[in-house]
Amino acid sequence: MTIETNSAISVDCVVFGFDGKNLKVLLIKRRYPVEDLSPDDLKLPGAMIQENETLPDAASRVLEETTGLRDIFLKQTSIFSSPDRIQDKELEWICQFQKIRTRRIVTVAYYALVKLNQGIINFTMRKGAKWVDVDLINHLIMDHMDILADALSVLQKEMMHSPIAFELLPKKFTIRQLQNLFGAVLGVSIDNRNFRKKIFSSGLLLPTGEKEKNVSHKPALYYTFNKSAFKKALKERNRLGFIDNWSY
Amino acid sequence: MTIETNSAISVDCVVFGFDGKNLKVLLIKRRYPVEDLSPDDLKLPGAMIQENETLPDAASRVLEETTGLRDIFLKQTSIFSSPDRIQDKELEWICQFQKIRTRRIVTVAYYALVKLNQGIINFTMRKGAKWVDVDLINHLIMDHMDILADALSVLQKEMMHSPIAFELLPKKFTIRQLQNLFGAVLGVSIDNRNFRKKIFSSGLLLPTGEKEKNVSHKPALYYTFNKSAFKKALKERNRLGFIDNWSY
Repeated sequence: MTIETNSAISVDCVVFGFDGKNLKVLLIKRRYPVEDLSPDDLKLPGAMIQENETLPDAASRVLEETTGLRDIFLKQTSIFSSPDRIQDKELEWICQFQKIRTRRIVTVAYYALVKLNQGIINFTMRKGAKWVDVDLINHLIMDHMDILADALSVLQKEMMHSPIAFELLPKKFTIRQLQNLFGAVLGVSIDNRNFRKKIFSSGLLLPTGEKEKNVSHKPALYYTFNKSAFKKALKERNRLGFIDNWSY
Repeated sequence: MTIETNSAISVDCVVFGFDGKNLKVLLIKRRYPVEDLSPDDLKLPGAMIQENETLPDAASRVLEETTGLRDIFLKQTSIFSSPDRIQDKELEWICQFQKIRTRRIVTVAYYALVKLNQGIINFTMRKGAKWVDVDLINHLIMDHMDILADALSVLQKEMMHSPIAFELLPKKFTIRQLQNLFGAVLGVSIDNRNFRKKIFSSGLLLPTGEKEKNVSHKPALYYTFNKSAFKKALKERNRLGFIDNWSY
């Protein structure tokens, strides 16, 4: 019997969601029991790559299996290839569960951005997965804490110079939601006035004319993301930027 | 006997060098003969990852083995994981040569930037490797043409907004050399006057006061890269840029 050595390569997905207040990450339990290790340990959703799929294929499959979602924001972060990233005991059980033989597993990490809604939360719950506040996660199996930390730092950087924040928000959102999102991802408390000033000066928000309904507080206005304004802003940055010194 | 399934993962290095006129890539021949395939086919330097090394370790090893160089610019580009990226016949011979069993090999690509000099050229020649003009490469084995094209596009993008160009030049260089480098990498002919204007306005070059020696033409001045000026320029871009709309 030929051993599929491609089973030494896995993908792990850091699936971020935002509930309007906190940044959440989708976590699951091991599908295999490991002696001496708690069955309640949590991990990131992942899988060995299958014989006929590419790494992005595998990541999309994992994402769809755990969230039911296709064609959402999904991007590779880093490769984790430390030879001892998995304890012997755990590796032993993985090999048994996967019916493979290997002394190591290299994993390629991806991060995904999900517009959280009740439908998705129900779906993931049925899959035995749960959304956990990123601040409350202090232990994951293997090197999944490192994978999570790496993905979070990528998300933080990306959010500063591209509009991926809007991938985490409903199509229509309030300034409060947007501010909460930046506060949650960057892990800082953001000054109200300053934030609104900057956001509005960016010219990247379009008012919808609609307001919140059935809220106790004063209903806030809903906005949408102005894609075309962003594209212009980006051009402008490049025009003003250091890049221009190199461009012909 | 346990089969090291990590042997299904390889690294391939696109090693760029610049000879003052053309952009070169370091190529080698197969170390194993493949029936029905020309022994003269060229490939990128690469290797299976070894049991106790990470992917960056493996890339550094390949680089040092082929160039004798350590601690030079080396960065990951893309992962190539198409299940059929290697013909059956070729894979068969690789497995025989490597004493492994696998139906596929996923490769992680890196690119390196080398300051070409006679010493390095001699070393690589002794290793049976050769520096080929990037424009003259129209066939490589497996998907190495794709890996090369991807690395070149990464180099082109990086060169437009970071000073990695200087990794390819001697510490002291002439404006002509710098212009030739940009022309060679970007594959465009660059207007002399315009280029000099932009370079000098960038304030990133420091005159050394030295001149070319023993040249037939009028000796050109030597310059060095002004690192601190670059760091300032980068800050300036961020200050002016779209980023600022998000930053607190």
